[in-house]
Amino acid sequence: MNPDLSPLSDVLADAGVDGYLLDADSGDSDQLYLSGFDAPDAFVTLYTPAETALLVSGLEYGRAKSESRADEVARLADYDFPELVSEHGRSEAKRRAVAAFLADFGVESVAAPERFPLGTADGLREQGVSVEVLDEDVVTQIRATKTDEEVEHVHEAQRANEAAMRAAEKMLAAASVEDGTLYYDGEVLTSERVKEEIEVTLLRHGCALDETIVACGADAAGPHNRGSGPLEAGETVVIDIFPRNKATKYHGDMTRTFVVGEPSDEVRRRYDDTREAFEAALDALEPGVTGKAVHDAVCDVYEEKGYDTLRSDSAAETGFIHSTGHGIGLDVHELPRVSPDGGELRPGHVVTIEPGLYDPEVGGIRIEDLVVVTEDGYENLTDYPIQLQVE
Amino acid sequence: MNPDLSPLSDVLADAGVDGYLLDADSGDSDQLYLSGFDAPDAFVTLYTPAETALLVSGLEYGRAKSESRADEVARLADYDFPELVSEHGRSEAKRRAVAAFLADFGVESVAAPERFPLGTADGLREQGVSVEVLDEDVVTQIRATKTDEEVEHVHEAQRANEAAMRAAEKMLAAASVEDGTLYYDGEVLTSERVKEEIEVTLLRHGCALDETIVACGADAAGPHNRGSGPLEAGETVVIDIFPRNKATKYHGDMTRTFVVGEPSDEVRRRYDDTREAFEAALDALEPGVTGKAVHDAVCDVYEEKGYDTLRSDSAAETGFIHSTGHGIGLDVHELPRVSPDGGELRPGHVVTIEPGLYDPEVGGIRIEDLVVVTEDGYENLTDYPIQLQVE
Repeated sequence: MNPDLSPLSDVLADAGVDGYLLDADSGDSDQLYLSGFDAPDAFVTLYTPAETALLVSGLEYGRAKSESRADEVARLADYDFPELVSEHGRSEAKRRAVAAFLADFGVESVAAPERFPLGTADGLREQGVSVEVLDEDVVTQIRATKTDEEVEHVHEAQRANEAAMRAAEKMLAAASVEDGTLYYDGEVLTSERVKEEIEVTLLRHGCALDETIVACGADAAGPHNRGSGPLEAGETVVIDIFPRNKATKYHGDMTRTFVVGEPSDEVRRRYDDTREAFEAALDALEPGVTGKAVHDAVCDVYEEKGYDTLRSDSAAETGFIHSTGHGIGLDVHELPRVSPDGGELRPGHVVTIEPGLYDPEVGGIRIEDLVVVTEDGYENLTDYPIQLQVE
Repeated sequence: MNPDLSPLSDVLADAGVDGYLLDADSGDSDQLYLSGFDAPDAFVTLYTPAETALLVSGLEYGRAKSESRADEVARLADYDFPELVSEHGRSEAKRRAVAAFLADFGVESVAAPERFPLGTADGLREQGVSVEVLDEDVVTQIRATKTDEEVEHVHEAQRANEAAMRAAEKMLAAASVEDGTLYYDGEVLTSERVKEEIEVTLLRHGCALDETIVACGADAAGPHNRGSGPLEAGETVVIDIFPRNKATKYHGDMTRTFVVGEPSDEVRRRYDDTREAFEAALDALEPGVTGKAVHDAVCDVYEEKGYDTLRSDSAAETGFIHSTGHGIGLDVHELPRVSPDGGELRPGHVVTIEPGLYDPEVGGIRIEDLVVVTEDGYENLTDYPIQLQVE
């Protein structure tokens, strides 16, 4: 993968600094992206317009050379690290080694992100290196635009997601109902049981995830409620799955809302209205429009039908009470925004479209697909039916 | 859980500062421990000898009040956050809100860990707050000593681990052999297939994990090689599982080495020698001895039998080429050390004991249990047979 990092060079030129510095493990997606190196312990990445260089421990040296996208890889031991440790202790030794590494590349001043480690920054400053915080997360901004390879990674995660949703829907469809409660395999069917099925299915498709939402009834009326306990017939069950492929580290994301048995007229109406809002967002989606405009298209539909939105009432607790969508990639929530402050959408942006309605009296409803903006519109990366009743 | 945080108060007194400050999400185990609050987005924890206070977003306010161990919980909105955002932008607004929050608690100077975010620190300094980096990770040191409740959490994760190891061993035991390669259910049995079985078992026991080692033959000769591809009869298969309980966030850790079919005499000898080194470590383990002494007991056994160790040859690439063990808890690797620089072991320390031998010509062998140091010795938290041949 060869990302276009020229915006980062531009920011460095504007700031008048020699390089951009990261000191983080690959759990930090900017680090993973800029270095192309997946490592559990913190390492240093230096970006200059001329080259990208890593500074890693001896343990990671071989792998960093063969797996990272860096032009140069250095080891702590290249800068007398063991001697520095015995003289100054481990923390100060690390700072001095980083300073020597920067000097090697002729770098006297760096920009760093908001969350750059203070210990390293203070140590570099003591060694005479200028360290300046960028308020703007420029690598995060670059990551918003995906290469074809990244889109394929998201698509692959979404295919695993479809299999997991199918497994969950099948479980709901196979459930029997006693006194309004769902039963499966002779036991009460709970949110936890459906989540386990989803997670096992994802594992078998090479994906991991820490969290899944399977929320029923009043639970489903809180957009971020994970859900727990028995599932009930006639109530909405919101299933929101956002797995990460273990090999590529890219995410998928999809939500469906189901009812086992007969939905009320109110639920049916809200589902159809959400479907309409969902289609309105997709109709609005093309390169050049803003995330705000797509979000407004959803608010227009909902408000016209008499629901509250955060646009019509910023204190609303029922109705459409979140944003229309978000970018997705190495992080499950990343740029661009499809929200009131969403900027221009461009080809290669991968976003969710997920309007929903919430009311503790009725339950929650949300429909979410994942799409990529293309030169002439968008491509939907999701292939799963949109229907309220399970089959 | 009520951890004894008095060592943190002592460090603050020594440094002559008013409080200790963290700005991180709960993926940072020090943050999770000090705040008692599990949240995916960064929040601020202030510890003073008098109280612990959190500063969180409005979204997390209710949950922080009911779930955290803080005495006080404040919201960004309590410090005019929306107005600050429109005036100064989001990053600067956050810094000013944190400064106002500190002022509310009469705090003018703070200590912070090595990896505290530079943006927050620089912003606080501009607001006149003194921010000093502690080289010593005092919260990490406090975390090394577990409460009874924490030991029970580790024990619970280890019980899930035993179930997963059993599932893996059963799979090996059920495999057939054709031309030296293992087959299961009509297909070649691979590392990946065994890992999937382990991970599914862990999920069904409430645990998650990103990585598992199932390494065969030459793969197993690299202590950190995750393993891949077909498993072979007569070769050592090293299985190292370190799951995290999804609810408590505490880890388990165990390694077993198996051979399907007949092990060579050399493998059998190395296995017995490793078993002896393992028992020697446990014999040495009691409160008051150092992690170094326990590690030395392992090196003594191996060296006496003619193997290289990193103690006898720091450049050794075969033999015993890692430490004897490590602390475990919220992090899979934490204090105390059971290694050449391991300090005094104390009651409540939970450590792994995991000697091993590595040689690309023979394969890898490792045996690992998890134990807690007690007032009069240790308790083994692991209940799984130690034997080379599968059953």
